Amino acid sequence: MENLREEDLLFAKHNIRTDLALESHQAVIEREGPPELPGVKVHTEKEPGITITRIVVENDLGAQMMGKAPGNYSTIESTGLREHNRDLHERIAQLLAKEIEWFFEQSEVGAEDPVLVVGLGNWNATPDSLGPKALDNLMVTRHLLEMSPPELRQGLRPVAAIAPGVLGLTGIETGEIIMGVVDRMGAKAVICIDALASRSVDRLCSTIQISDTGIHPGAGVGNRRLAINKETLGIPVIALGVPTVVHAVTIVSDALNLLETGGEGQNPSMETSPGRTKFNIDPKALMSGEPTSPAAPPPLDRRQLISQVLDPYFSSMIVTPKEIDLLIDEVVDVITGALNTAFHEGVSYDEVFKYLS
Amino acid sequence: MENLREEDLLFAKHNIRTDLALESHQAVIEREGPPELPGVKVHTEKEPGITITRIVVENDLGAQMMGKAPGNYSTIESTGLREHNRDLHERIAQLLAKEIEWFFEQSEVGAEDPVLVVGLGNWNATPDSLGPKALDNLMVTRHLLEMSPPELRQGLRPVAAIAPGVLGLTGIETGEIIMGVVDRMGAKAVICIDALASRSVDRLCSTIQISDTGIHPGAGVGNRRLAINKETLGIPVIALGVPTVVHAVTIVSDALNLLETGGEGQNPSMETSPGRTKFNIDPKALMSGEPTSPAAPPPLDRRQLISQVLDPYFSSMIVTPKEIDLLIDEVVDVITGALNTAFHEGVSYDEVFKYLS
Amino acid sequence: MENLREEDLLFAKHNIRTDLALESHQAVIEREGPPELPGVKVHTEKEPGITITRIVVENDLGAQMMGKAPGNYSTIESTGLREHNRDLHERIAQLLAKEIEWFFEQSEVGAEDPVLVVGLGNWNATPDSLGPKALDNLMVTRHLLEMSPPELRQGLRPVAAIAPGVLGLTGIETGEIIMGVVDRMGAKAVICIDALASRSVDRLCSTIQISDTGIHPGAGVGNRRLAINKETLGIPVIALGVPTVVHAVTIVSDALNLLETGGEGQNPSMETSPGRTKFNIDPKALMSGEPTSPAAPPPLDRRQLISQVLDPYFSSMIVTPKEIDLLIDEVVDVITGALNTAFHEGVSYDEVFKYLS
Amino acid sequence: MENLREEDLLFAKHNIRTDLALESHQAVIEREGPPELPGVKVHTEKEPGITITRIVVENDLGAQMMGKAPGNYSTIESTGLREHNRDLHERIAQLLAKEIEWFFEQSEVGAEDPVLVVGLGNWNATPDSLGPKALDNLMVTRHLLEMSPPELRQGLRPVAAIAPGVLGLTGIETGEIIMGVVDRMGAKAVICIDALASRSVDRLCSTIQISDTGIHPGAGVGNRRLAINKETLGIPVIALGVPTVVHAVTIVSDALNLLETGGEGQNPSMETSPGRTKFNIDPKALMSGEPTSPAAPPPLDRRQLISQVLDPYFSSMIVTPKEIDLLIDEVVDVITGALNTAFHEGVSYDEVFKYLS
Repeated sequence: MENLREEDLLFAKHNIRTDLALESHQAVIEREGPPELPGVKVHTEKEPGITITRIVVENDLGAQMMGKAPGNYSTIESTGLREHNRDLHERIAQLLAKEIEWFFEQSEVGAEDPVLVVGLGNWNATPDSLGPKALDNLMVTRHLLEMSPPELRQGLRPVAAIAPGVLGLTGIETGEIIMGVVDRMGAKAVICIDALASRSVDRLCSTIQISDTGIHPGAGVGNRRLAINKETLGIPVIALGVPTVVHAVTIVSDALNLLETGGEGQNPSMETSPGRTKFNIDPKALMSGEPTSPAAPPPLDRRQLISQVLDPYFSSMIVTPKEIDLLIDEVVDVITGALNTAFHEGVSYDEVFKYLS
Repeated sequence: MENLREEDLLFAKHNIRTDLALESHQAVIEREGPPELPGVKVHTEKEPGITITRIVVENDLGAQMMGKAPGNYSTIESTGLREHNRDLHERIAQLLAKEIEWFFEQSEVGAEDPVLVVGLGNWNATPDSLGPKALDNLMVTRHLLEMSPPELRQGLRPVAAIAPGVLGLTGIETGEIIMGVVDRMGAKAVICIDALASRSVDRLCSTIQISDTGIHPGAGVGNRRLAINKETLGIPVIALGVPTVVHAVTIVSDALNLLETGGEGQNPSMETSPGRTKFNIDPKALMSGEPTSPAAPPPLDRRQLISQVLDPYFSSMIVTPKEIDLLIDEVVDVITGALNTAFHEGVSYDEVFKYLS
Repeated sequence: MENLREEDLLFAKHNIRTDLALESHQAVIEREGPPELPGVKVHTEKEPGITITRIVVENDLGAQMMGKAPGNYSTIESTGLREHNRDLHERIAQLLAKEIEWFFEQSEVGAEDPVLVVGLGNWNATPDSLGPKALDNLMVTRHLLEMSPPELRQGLRPVAAIAPGVLGLTGIETGEIIMGVVDRMGAKAVICIDALASRSVDRLCSTIQISDTGIHPGAGVGNRRLAINKETLGIPVIALGVPTVVHAVTIVSDALNLLETGGEGQNPSMETSPGRTKFNIDPKALMSGEPTSPAAPPPLDRRQLISQVLDPYFSSMIVTPKEIDLLIDEVVDVITGALNTAFHEGVSYDEVFKYLS
Repeated sequence: MENLREEDLLFAKHNIRTDLALESHQAVIEREGPPELPGVKVHTEKEPGITITRIVVENDLGAQMMGKAPGNYSTIESTGLREHNRDLHERIAQLLAKEIEWFFEQSEVGAEDPVLVVGLGNWNATPDSLGPKALDNLMVTRHLLEMSPPELRQGLRPVAAIAPGVLGLTGIETGEIIMGVVDRMGAKAVICIDALASRSVDRLCSTIQISDTGIHPGAGVGNRRLAINKETLGIPVIALGVPTVVHAVTIVSDALNLLETGGEGQNPSMETSPGRTKFNIDPKALMSGEPTSPAAPPPLDRRQLISQVLDPYFSSMIVTPKEIDLLIDEVVDVITGALNTAFHEGVSYDEVFKYLS
């Protein structure tokens, strides 16, 4: 019991965690054994080079086990996102657009309802710059529609966009800025785009998560203190996220755990994903001080190791590919393409501007 | 009378104009002859390499003649701003800090009143990126002070900062975003930093204007539609601006005018400023169709020329130095240094962070 | 005679000039009257939204009149280059690729001959950053081919790329750096990409020039002192250029000239190009001091005006669209697409990397 | 014996290594026990907040043990480099300048000998952009001196600078480009600035290494294949490096090692450096398959773990602070300040430009 709270603390404070519901689910399955979690539904679809997984966290029990709020989480995975493959990217963008449209329907966002796209993160810190960069090629139409006669506006959605910056640079909570803008412009939905932390390096820039549960304090690459969700904003918040970092603490914990367990208990699915760090995490064991395998080191060392992992400077370290700048550019193109499609159904980019300007 | 309205139109629509009160004043003096304008006070101070001019537009009559709202306008001029001269820049920053402090006193902004610094403009368009760039080294303290015990906060001002982007990229009026943020954070004053248009190329990146009249629609390098001032925000708005462009239309008009007048009637002060475009503008003559000198071309040509100048594509052209990126970096350093000094009187940069973190 | 040399001086020193052979040709035709120049052949092709003009300067007489070295100059014009129009850009890229292939044939560059692509200009000065930016998405293959077995290299060309910077930042003549690299890598041809100056604002970012005469001292947006051509490098040099600026001096000269001539003598073709500055330049008259129309001002004023235009600070001013950063990104995509196609005939981008990595 | 070669392979291929001679020395001492290495001299100086360590690798025996070429290695350490502390940075810059001057004397580089500064690395990949960024404020004088009369050149050194890019972007070995430029400009010494990999996260952006042994294949954040040193260039090569990343593989290895050894055998000096990852590396044990402590896991697991660490995708991962962009800006300022001082003894920045322009 006490251990459990300590563990929570460790997770909350030191980010041995993932922003992906998919990875949370895998971690619980690995830890708990049973093939299914009560209160959590998982459905997977595959097509060449792409896997889509839809997870529904149905109730509080599922939410507690997963460490994720109740709601819908869709994940599109494709290692091809990291390659310069125009055809595949086009296909992923189409799938992502459909997924976003499904979330709009679920949240009852109408085809002409104004939306505010928020690029979260820090444009001066590469791995956290995904959100602001995603706005660069977004088709922003709100100001054009306001100046157009009503007959031209038909079927077009007013889209606005803002990159509010991060607390350390603005001195203002990101959530406060968004609330202010939502009030002023009368948005009916918010789309947040954010860089995430994953548990596994092979998900970096190859996975896109869409959810309707908003952004939670402490999530993402930067640190946020205020939730950005339907409760705080009063309108639906759909979050699009892409993992760009793994916390260094996660890598070390995984390494330790593998050693402790002697490499057993691995998720079999991992064998099929060759580029993956195949380390498991068992944070309960990590904290408990009880050896989980005969070969495990005595509790003392583990504690010492953990205290080193918890060193504040080390815990701010991130693991990321050398070419992260380039990978972000690729995945951002896919996201912007999908948003432009989902926002203005049946109208191409060129057409919108022909209509309005 | 008719001509006058046409002229106004020309000025308003085609930007044959300046954002600097100093230049407006010069233009009126050149045009109207008398050495002093009723309702306008001008005071000049000089020290080696630097000229400070303080203009007070006292009433509506002065405002109408100048085309500038009633209020205070201070201008610091130094061609040394364009050179990499650390000592001079330090001196200019000190003078600018004092000037900003004077505006704070005038507007009754207290030493611990929270301020919001707004970097206006578009970071993707070099000559318009001055505002957002000026935030980069600003000492933002609001979030640190909120977490500090009251005894540490003494004498420190909560400073927040935001770069709201431009209408074309956000779909939202800049003024709307600022209003939303001001409401949320409870700012007691707003400082706007903006790139301006001047009439003369030799003022580019060598002049800093501070005023308490806010930002007006259509001012600056970008186009704004909503005023950002005490009337719209309910709190004092102090604007800091630096000219980074001359509109191409201005250059052509000036050239025409010089030719028409045969080079007479020039402001004698110009002879002392060697790097200057010494063209005069006489827009009334420009529009009237009446020859102002015997050598002037027939009215028809002038109209034709003006219609070319008014061509929409040409009228979006700007004149700027080749090395504008570099010049903006230099002047931005001076502005940030001055703001950090003015905001936190008697406390150095290093000290603030020692106190708070 | 004396006047002629003075004029040359004016052109050389103060950049009242164009880097486009097309504009040189127009200027001569306007000035000299006859519909054809001896020693210069011009051929124009049109297709929807695009005009291609091929100029051959056949001999020294033509070269002297045009102020351009003997050789081939192709120009692709499309105002659509300034719009976000993917289909049109694709078509322009295909036409440009064919044009580049024609220049390769003319210069006897073989399909597997290694080429060095040089991005001229300064990445820190926006209007001069076109060259370095054009390398960003270039398919560089030389190092991959060196590590591949010969059977895989068939039909693939070793492509290398360098952005040598500018004299002011490196302290080394750009030509010297290129010579050093060409020697080391054994290139058989050099492709230089450069930002140019045009005479007319409506050509900015809407025109691409390809020539086989290399880069000449003083050309481009920056200042170069050493020629980069077949004579200096010993191998064919193909130059790709896009105008990104008009020198402010040119705009003023054009304005003066129109006024002087009373607007007569305009090239009729200009009427069909609505976005254009329709000013003419008659530099001979500009310098001669002789009135060219009854309404012209006395010679004295003209001299005075010219001396102002010649002011060193003013003469470093450029005219450019506000949104130049964005326009450069658009045209650079077209150039990179065309080069990737022309370099690796019949092989797509994806295929090349599949083969080699 | 076999194991040793395997280990070498592991180090060479998978970068479980450091570019810092200081860390190599520590690692050997930790592994081998004796307080002193034959053929290696170490001397340490301290002043408030700064530690300078000078290591001389005197012969091949020392070189083999250290894995570093014979020569001089100076290291300046100060965690204050990561803070915005202008006074401390100024002091570090002065110390660094003296150190560089000492290396010039050792290498017999005269006060007026032309030098080429090379910014190694990739400006598009943040952690590898340190070299190119260091050129931004460098005082480049070669072209100015060439145009100045001899009497003005006295005591001034011709300085040139180039950022050659990386093999993946240019298709040309960096060493080849440098050779070409050195030949053309007649440089008498090369200064290479490069981002390095360290073994410990607390050295990131807090350590500057200067050495006279050049740059070796595979060193730095990027991958280089050709040595850049006196042997290949024929002139002295002084390398300035700052660690900006730890390879993820290193972190995992260190974690494993600590666990295996039960946390013993730590370098006592580490206790004094609180922000440090205190993991040890014992690669011999890592590879050998023999348990080094009773609690160690069976060899099989270790092999399995290593094979995961060796996974190509994982081995391209780097560990870096979130705010790496900002930290690089700080340390680059110190380096540029030191170079400007060391290059032009007794002449200030402002003076140089006053003399020459």
